[in-house]
Amino acid sequence: MIDSRSVGVFDSGIGGLTVFKILAERFPQESFLYLGDTARLPYGSKSGQTIRRYSEQNVHYLLRLGVKAVVIACNSASSQFSESEFEGVPVYNVIHPGSFRALSLTKNKKIGVLGTRATIKSAAYAQELIRLDDKVEVFSQACPLFVPLAEEGWDEDPITNLVAYRYVNPILQTGIDTLIMGCTHYPILKSAIHRVAGNNVELIDSGSAIADLIAQDIERGHFKRAKDGSEQNIQIMTTDASDHFTSLSKRILAPIVAHEFRVVDI
Amino acid sequence: MIDSRSVGVFDSGIGGLTVFKILAERFPQESFLYLGDTARLPYGSKSGQTIRRYSEQNVHYLLRLGVKAVVIACNSASSQFSESEFEGVPVYNVIHPGSFRALSLTKNKKIGVLGTRATIKSAAYAQELIRLDDKVEVFSQACPLFVPLAEEGWDEDPITNLVAYRYVNPILQTGIDTLIMGCTHYPILKSAIHRVAGNNVELIDSGSAIADLIAQDIERGHFKRAKDGSEQNIQIMTTDASDHFTSLSKRILAPIVAHEFRVVDI
Repeated sequence: MIDSRSVGVFDSGIGGLTVFKILAERFPQESFLYLGDTARLPYGSKSGQTIRRYSEQNVHYLLRLGVKAVVIACNSASSQFSESEFEGVPVYNVIHPGSFRALSLTKNKKIGVLGTRATIKSAAYAQELIRLDDKVEVFSQACPLFVPLAEEGWDEDPITNLVAYRYVNPILQTGIDTLIMGCTHYPILKSAIHRVAGNNVELIDSGSAIADLIAQDIERGHFKRAKDGSEQNIQIMTTDASDHFTSLSKRILAPIVAHEFRVVDI
Repeated sequence: MIDSRSVGVFDSGIGGLTVFKILAERFPQESFLYLGDTARLPYGSKSGQTIRRYSEQNVHYLLRLGVKAVVIACNSASSQFSESEFEGVPVYNVIHPGSFRALSLTKNKKIGVLGTRATIKSAAYAQELIRLDDKVEVFSQACPLFVPLAEEGWDEDPITNLVAYRYVNPILQTGIDTLIMGCTHYPILKSAIHRVAGNNVELIDSGSAIADLIAQDIERGHFKRAKDGSEQNIQIMTTDASDHFTSLSKRILAPIVAHEFRVVDI
């Protein structure tokens, strides 16, 4: 089953580009459209009802552009949009795949979750993990400095190493063997987090987890792939213009190069 | 001229409590109402039109509670609300008093401004400083880590000292003798900023600048003070409940103790 249309990915900002990049690398024949709702970010501090409304607007916008699947690369939006299908199109969020992958890798059933203050307060990962396996123990840590550190571009920086140690070291003391990076910005700081967590703790990023799920869905015929030999097209749309975000986007995506950056009104 | 009604202060969050505290200490016979629009924060990433609408809603809410003056303790709101009077009540914003005070203290007319990315991008301080004195040179630095560091409560912390050095040291090389803390959160980090800036640079916080202006307005009869011997009443309202913000609010206000904390729907 072949479908040459693009895959749509949306986030409230540019953190979701970490997910987008992994998908674009894993499926080099697929084309991708990214929508960053930068004019209305952050979603985390808004009500559930508003997040749902914005998310539906984003999905409808991507559907009007003719996408064949939607990936919600935003934790706040994922917690309000758990359907796996919407108007006939498959939808992937970040919370289910990340949780599922963590459970498939943990040996001692002790799983850590790092996230924004809003994500940790919502307990979305803890609830999903326990729904999937009620034997699991979940330890959470809010990391409010991580998003601004990633947005400053200080990913290889002694300050980031100190902050990573401050947040991650206490959660290691609980004996976790698996750690979910529960915010799409965090893979930008993966090497700093890994330096603290060490080789014995599996780091889970949503992008790889979603890619695994899509690969399975291709096998099962739930996801129609592009024709062999198709040339990949990458387009990035944001709802607000910002030179800072454009240059940071290019850094996150490298070595992938977008064919077009444009500002849209949704 | 005597008026026993309270003074209303609003901010998008709790940063404005640094302004509120200075006013409450400086005018111990006045009563104060604080409104933190925490449900809709941050304002900085919203459009000018939306910030104006929210600000008017906040002012109307305070006026309905019967305040005799309004202080806008929020940089984003101040940039959209520059009137000194609204529906017959005096209004104070943070940008004019901070700029005015910096110009009265600078000797070499080289002034630095620290702020959020949104405030620096808006150039609100630079425009006001140049409007007041076209001989002044303004050097700006966005400090996106400062708000989350203040909200983490890491005000006396080696990480904060490192970040302060990173942001403040380059702007010192321009030869400034006066530095505006252009975000109401920043006075929480004043000692870390002072440690880098040294004794030869005047640090300007909006709270003291507004207090000076109110003291002048009392002299000139533009601001009607409370009766001698009035007992101070302090009330804090937020539009969203958050234990984290309540405990941080108490830390910022100390030694001042609020008579009431409550959540309101505006």
